[in-house]
Amino acid sequence: MTATSPIYLDCDTGIDDALALAYLLAAPAADVVGIGTVSGNVSAAVGARNTLDLLQLAGHAHIPVALGAHDPLAGSFGGGAPWVHGGNGIGEVALTTAAASVAEESAAEMLVRLARTYPGSLKVVAIGPLTNIAEALRLEPSLPSLVESVTVMGGAALAPGNITAVAEANIHNDPEAAALVLAADWDITLVPLDVTMASVLEESHRQELLASSSPVAQALGEMLGYYFRFYEGIYGRPCSAMHDPLAAALAVGGAQAAVAPVVRAAVDTSDGPGRGQTICDMRGLYAGYPEVRGARCRVVLSLEEDFAPHLVKTLLSYFPAGSETTTAALASAGSST
Amino acid sequence: MTATSPIYLDCDTGIDDALALAYLLAAPAADVVGIGTVSGNVSAAVGARNTLDLLQLAGHAHIPVALGAHDPLAGSFGGGAPWVHGGNGIGEVALTTAAASVAEESAAEMLVRLARTYPGSLKVVAIGPLTNIAEALRLEPSLPSLVESVTVMGGAALAPGNITAVAEANIHNDPEAAALVLAADWDITLVPLDVTMASVLEESHRQELLASSSPVAQALGEMLGYYFRFYEGIYGRPCSAMHDPLAAALAVGGAQAAVAPVVRAAVDTSDGPGRGQTICDMRGLYAGYPEVRGARCRVVLSLEEDFAPHLVKTLLSYFPAGSETTTAALASAGSST
Repeated sequence: MTATSPIYLDCDTGIDDALALAYLLAAPAADVVGIGTVSGNVSAAVGARNTLDLLQLAGHAHIPVALGAHDPLAGSFGGGAPWVHGGNGIGEVALTTAAASVAEESAAEMLVRLARTYPGSLKVVAIGPLTNIAEALRLEPSLPSLVESVTVMGGAALAPGNITAVAEANIHNDPEAAALVLAADWDITLVPLDVTMASVLEESHRQELLASSSPVAQALGEMLGYYFRFYEGIYGRPCSAMHDPLAAALAVGGAQAAVAPVVRAAVDTSDGPGRGQTICDMRGLYAGYPEVRGARCRVVLSLEEDFAPHLVKTLLSYFPAGSETTTAALASAGSST
Repeated sequence: MTATSPIYLDCDTGIDDALALAYLLAAPAADVVGIGTVSGNVSAAVGARNTLDLLQLAGHAHIPVALGAHDPLAGSFGGGAPWVHGGNGIGEVALTTAAASVAEESAAEMLVRLARTYPGSLKVVAIGPLTNIAEALRLEPSLPSLVESVTVMGGAALAPGNITAVAEANIHNDPEAAALVLAADWDITLVPLDVTMASVLEESHRQELLASSSPVAQALGEMLGYYFRFYEGIYGRPCSAMHDPLAAALAVGGAQAAVAPVVRAAVDTSDGPGRGQTICDMRGLYAGYPEVRGARCRVVLSLEEDFAPHLVKTLLSYFPAGSETTTAALASAGSST
C-alpha cells in the first residue's frame, strides 16, 4: 500500500488537471516521472505552459514536461473550453512563468521511453483526450505489455454526457484515439462522469484551500472560483465536479472504487449523434454485474468514500507555506472571485 | 379523472403486449377503439392472430384489429424474439382461434381514420416498433394535431439498452420510424427501460393470476412463466420487467410518473454502434431537470407507486370467471411452467 509507483501523466491543463497534478505531487504512492500535454481544455502548448508554471510553483520544476498532439487523430483542435477553464486554462490566475521549458521529445515519445525505463511498473494517468496515448501505441505496439495500468478520466456509462447528450469531452475531443486506447490489451480503468459528477467539491472545500498559507493551495482555490461559476449552471449552486483529480487518486489508491464492473466498452466513431460516446455494456446492472467473458474495461461507477475531503486533506498536508516570491506572483494575478 | 379516452393500440403481441391489451380492456379510463399490429416480438401477422385470439378470450371480439407493417422502414423484419416470447409470441400458450379476422384497412390507415373520428381525443399507445405510426404520419401529416397524445414504450435514457448496450428493442427494430415519430410535433411520452426495468412482476404476482378462475388471467399467468424464464437471466430470479402494460397504464392515468422530465430526444439512425439508441438529453439531471426550451419529449424515469400490484389488481377485478369452453381451450395448451 505504501509502495510508490512511477506515473506518466497525460493532461490538458485545465483547472481540474491542475488539481490532479497537485494531488499526484502530494500523494505518497505517486512519483510523477513525466508529463505530456495534449489539446483539450486548452491547446497542448498552453497546457504545457500551465504545467511547467504549476510545477515550479509547487517546487517540482525537475519533472520533465513534453508537448503532445495539438490536433486529434481526425480533424483539428476546436479551441478548448475557455467558458469552463478561463482563457488561460487556469481560471485567469496568473502564475510566475517557469524557467524550464518543454522537453525535446514529444509526449508520445516520452510515454514510450518511460514505459521502457520502468517496465511493468509505469502507471499511465490520462486526463485529457487520448491522442498522445494512441500515438504511443503506434510508436510502440507492445506498450500494453510494458505499462502497469492505464487510468482514463473520460466517458459516460449510464450518466449523461457533458459535451453532447451522450458524449464526455475528453473522449469526444478525439474519438478515434479513444477507440484505439479502449481496444488495446491492457489493464484499463475508465473514470467516467457517472462517478466524477457525483464527486463534488463544495465552496467550503475551496475556502479551506484559500485559507492555507500555501501558494499552491491558494492558486488552486482561486482557479476553482472560476470553475465553480461554470458548474453553478450545472448543479444550481457554486461547486464543481472533480473529474481529473479523482482519476489520479483512483490510479494511485488514494480513492477506492465501490462499484466498478469490468465490461465491454467501445467508442462511437461514427458521424451520427452518438459520436464520441463511450458505449459501455452495462446490461449486467440488474444482476449486480456478473463477470463478462472477454470484457476488459473497468468502469468506476461509485466510490467507497466521498472524495473531496481526501483531496483537500492531501493537498493541505503536503504543500508548505510559500516563499515571498510565489506569494507575490499570485498576488499579482488579481482575484478571480 | 374518470373520463374514458378512445385508445388506438399499436402492438407486436408478445407476452407483455398481451398484458397491456388486457390491462387496457380492464382499465375504466380506456376505451380501445382499434388495434394495429407491427412486426417486432413476432411478425405483424402472428401479432394480429394473437391479438384476435386474446380479444375473443376476453370477450372483446368486436374491437377491430388491423394488420400493420411487416418490415421496418429500412431493411426487413429480423424474425422476432422467440427466446423471450416463445415461438408463437405468447409463451407457447395455445388459445382458441378467434372467429374474427383482421380488418381490411392497414394499421396506419386505421390510426388515421380513428384520429379523424375522435379529433383531439384519441390516445395512441405504441408498444411495438414505430413503423405504423411513422406510416400514419406520412398518410396524414396533420396527425399530430388530430391525436390527443402518443405514449411509446421504447428506448433507454440513462439505463442500459436491451438489444445492444445502448438500444432498446422497439426503437432498434425500426430506428428510422422512431426518428420520425420523435420528431413529430405532438404530445409524446417515452416509457423507456429506465422505468420499465424497475417495474418488476414477481412470481407471487404471477401466482395470483394463475389462482384466478378467469381464463384471461390464467392465460396471462401461463405466458408469464415463459417470460420469467428469459428474465431470470437478466435479474437472477424468476420475475419480469413490465414494459408494455406500464406504458398503457401511464397513457390512461392508471400509473403516475414521479420523475418525468421533458427533454430533447432523437434516435441514432447511423450505422455506428449506437444505432437505434434514443439519445435523450438528460444533462439537466444535476439540477433536477430544469425546463428546456424547445424540448417536447416527456421521458418517464420513475413512478409514484410500484406498478405490479396495480396491474394485477386491475386485471383480477375486471376479468370474470371463465366458461367451460375457454377453460378447456387453455387446458389443452399444456402447462409451460
